[in-house]
Amino acid sequence: MDIQTLTAAVRNIPDFPIKGIQFKDITTLFQSAEYLRGLSDILYDRYKDKGITKVAGIESRGFFMGPATAIRLYAGFVPIRKFGKLPYKTIEEKYSKEYGEDIIQIHKDALNENDIVLLHDDLLATGGTMAAAYRLVKKLGVKKIYINFLIELEKLNGRALFNDDVEIDSILKFEI
Amino acid sequence: MDIQTLTAAVRNIPDFPIKGIQFKDITTLFQSAEYLRGLSDILYDRYKDKGITKVAGIESRGFFMGPATAIRLYAGFVPIRKFGKLPYKTIEEKYSKEYGEDIIQIHKDALNENDIVLLHDDLLATGGTMAAAYRLVKKLGVKKIYINFLIELEKLNGRALFNDDVEIDSILKFEI
Repeated sequence: MDIQTLTAAVRNIPDFPIKGIQFKDITTLFQSAEYLRGLSDILYDRYKDKGITKVAGIESRGFFMGPATAIRLYAGFVPIRKFGKLPYKTIEEKYSKEYGEDIIQIHKDALNENDIVLLHDDLLATGGTMAAAYRLVKKLGVKKIYINFLIELEKLNGRALFNDDVEIDSILKFEI
Repeated sequence: MDIQTLTAAVRNIPDFPIKGIQFKDITTLFQSAEYLRGLSDILYDRYKDKGITKVAGIESRGFFMGPATAIRLYAGFVPIRKFGKLPYKTIEEKYSKEYGEDIIQIHKDALNENDIVLLHDDLLATGGTMAAAYRLVKKLGVKKIYINFLIELEKLNGRALFNDDVEIDSILKFEI
């Protein structure tokens, strides 16, 4: 499956959720068996030689390909969720949103110092959520972290929030 | 992977999210590569001969195994989401919760009359959410609907909300 075909399968929705945003609707890609399998193959190929032991996905569109990729890599899956959703002992990180703050959490016992983690979400826009998730996973003392997005909005330059030594990869790239 | 091992991998959390509930924490199962692969194999085996064309998963723990199962069955994946989350034209269904009402939505163009749908969520408790999701998918005029849960709380008798002709299956069973 070539990247161009997958990119064309994403539907652009103007002014969602608010005026001025060009929302990238991935449901049109996911509802096609062929495109979904193709996307899964690409993710598998990119990370199959990295020794990934856990895939961590961010609520809620990071849950789409998180477990699916974990299964193919023979890794475990760990959810990073909004405040109050995880039932066991958690650690948390705050991050700023347009209006106010948000909190994400991970289970304390979800990762350990032997883990090589693939941290995954659907979209890299300004990068605030992923930066918080990266701090969260780092706190658990893992061996290495790779970051992956299905889609990157390149003009928003979310990569600027991360040091150069962090390996960030995105599959489909849009200007904005 | 035997069912007993997977059942034992689910963590019971007393009094979450509110007093009196014995919450079934599936994160302990998902964080194990072996158990997660085993769960995926069971789902694949149960539905591989049904001609499933789309897996529909309910937000947000229905997103864990929804796309993963779709990929293995070479089907598409369709999300059923809470009100206001889907960006394109939707149809919706209301259902009652303990305090007030909730609304779920699906994209109008997500399914059609040729689809054989596997409708999936993590938990069958009283069944209200799944009953609404079932009505939602039926409205789009699909050919057949199978219903699957990772976990069923048998004493809550959520199956009573469905007619006998609906094929409902759950993988892990708990009394309560």
